[in-house]
Amino acid sequence: MCQLLGMNANTPTDVMFSFAGLATRADEHKDGFGIAFFEDPGLRLFVDHHSARVSPVADLVKRFPIRSGNVIAHIRKATQGRVALQNTHPFVRELWGRYWVFAHNGDLKGFAPRLHGGFRPVGDTDSELAFCWLMQELAKAHADVPPISELRHTLAELLPIPAAYGTFNCLLSNGQALWAHCSTQLHWLARRHPFGAAHLADDDLSVDFGALTTPGDRVALVATQPLTRDEAWTAFAPGELRVFVGGQPG
Amino acid sequence: MCQLLGMNANTPTDVMFSFAGLATRADEHKDGFGIAFFEDPGLRLFVDHHSARVSPVADLVKRFPIRSGNVIAHIRKATQGRVALQNTHPFVRELWGRYWVFAHNGDLKGFAPRLHGGFRPVGDTDSELAFCWLMQELAKAHADVPPISELRHTLAELLPIPAAYGTFNCLLSNGQALWAHCSTQLHWLARRHPFGAAHLADDDLSVDFGALTTPGDRVALVATQPLTRDEAWTAFAPGELRVFVGGQPG
Repeated sequence: MCQLLGMNANTPTDVMFSFAGLATRADEHKDGFGIAFFEDPGLRLFVDHHSARVSPVADLVKRFPIRSGNVIAHIRKATQGRVALQNTHPFVRELWGRYWVFAHNGDLKGFAPRLHGGFRPVGDTDSELAFCWLMQELAKAHADVPPISELRHTLAELLPIPAAYGTFNCLLSNGQALWAHCSTQLHWLARRHPFGAAHLADDDLSVDFGALTTPGDRVALVATQPLTRDEAWTAFAPGELRVFVGGQPG
Repeated sequence: MCQLLGMNANTPTDVMFSFAGLATRADEHKDGFGIAFFEDPGLRLFVDHHSARVSPVADLVKRFPIRSGNVIAHIRKATQGRVALQNTHPFVRELWGRYWVFAHNGDLKGFAPRLHGGFRPVGDTDSELAFCWLMQELAKAHADVPPISELRHTLAELLPIPAAYGTFNCLLSNGQALWAHCSTQLHWLARRHPFGAAHLADDDLSVDFGALTTPGDRVALVATQPLTRDEAWTAFAPGELRVFVGGQPG
């Protein structure tokens, strides 16, 4: 199944991702990957619909130390929508002069909301459709970008609607915070300086924090499955929504 | 000054860019670069606000053979807006279920259109503001994505409005066609199979077409300055708008 990974930090953190696990498991998650890094309000999005095993984009991401406060990554195993660039997560839209990034793990059956035209999917996944609907409803609910806590309330009302149609584990960020909604499977961890490498030998993704961290640094991670064996990851409850701000659960 | 480069081809063309010239001229165009590649309706956007000389993203673009039918590239020399990722061209928005990519060479003074909220700039450049206004006006003019020729008429009405505020050489693509508007400086060329490398030793950008082209292949290039000395580049007239479809001027 798809893998989600989110990071929220209180200071732009030098982070490097590794797709090492994929190199030996080419049969899984072969349908592409994507990583979005916020740098202030700016955004870098690396996507590829080829396996991370052979993708030169994955190779760049592995070698490129990116300082970011909010990251969303996704490794895809296609369930709906063909394997194509336009169906590769994360998806991005602009709202209220900010970029919004969304990635989804799961499968929605029969979710067919009415879209008024402000946000429309480019590809043909249930995920991008749900994201466009979510952006549309956020735009209707607030005239401008609301405080993080207020946005959490709106999301708590909206996210159960698509979630009623299937499995809807998802990550959302606007560069200020990371929202995570669990339908079936999601874990989180808050870490502090000093950071080592967080890795699980058997996993697809690992994340390494650079050596240049300071004592005040805080980082929160959200992942489909715990990335490390020896740290206290907390499982989300089904239906739980969490927001991470400044590297801590909000 | 900034450099624009656009490519439109009748078949996804294996294209590789080179920033070789920049390696020896670090003082110019040091404020970032960006390249957007359409693959069907999907999009890859590589941006960096570091010089192409040192950027690992530029290094990837140089080594990565990307098959695309529409490409827009931009090398930035900042005039308005600080050097930051959110100010790096090309800019992207979604409209009518398609991605739209825009890059601008020039400087607008005092262009302050009213934005209704559907499209708002994330950064603080005159270029992104003009793009958001353009998307807003296109959304008002058509209910859904219009035929290319009709869109050309709408753009011919809209583009002179920001252009009245300064220099407005720009490229726009939705993956179906490439629109190019000249205010002061822009050149185009239509090429056919067999393709060689198009390069000017003294230039910042060169573009190489892969060996695997077929006799029916056609490619149009648009660039601030001609990329080659020995081909018949045509200069745009001031105020001229051209659309390229299937690798040929439309």
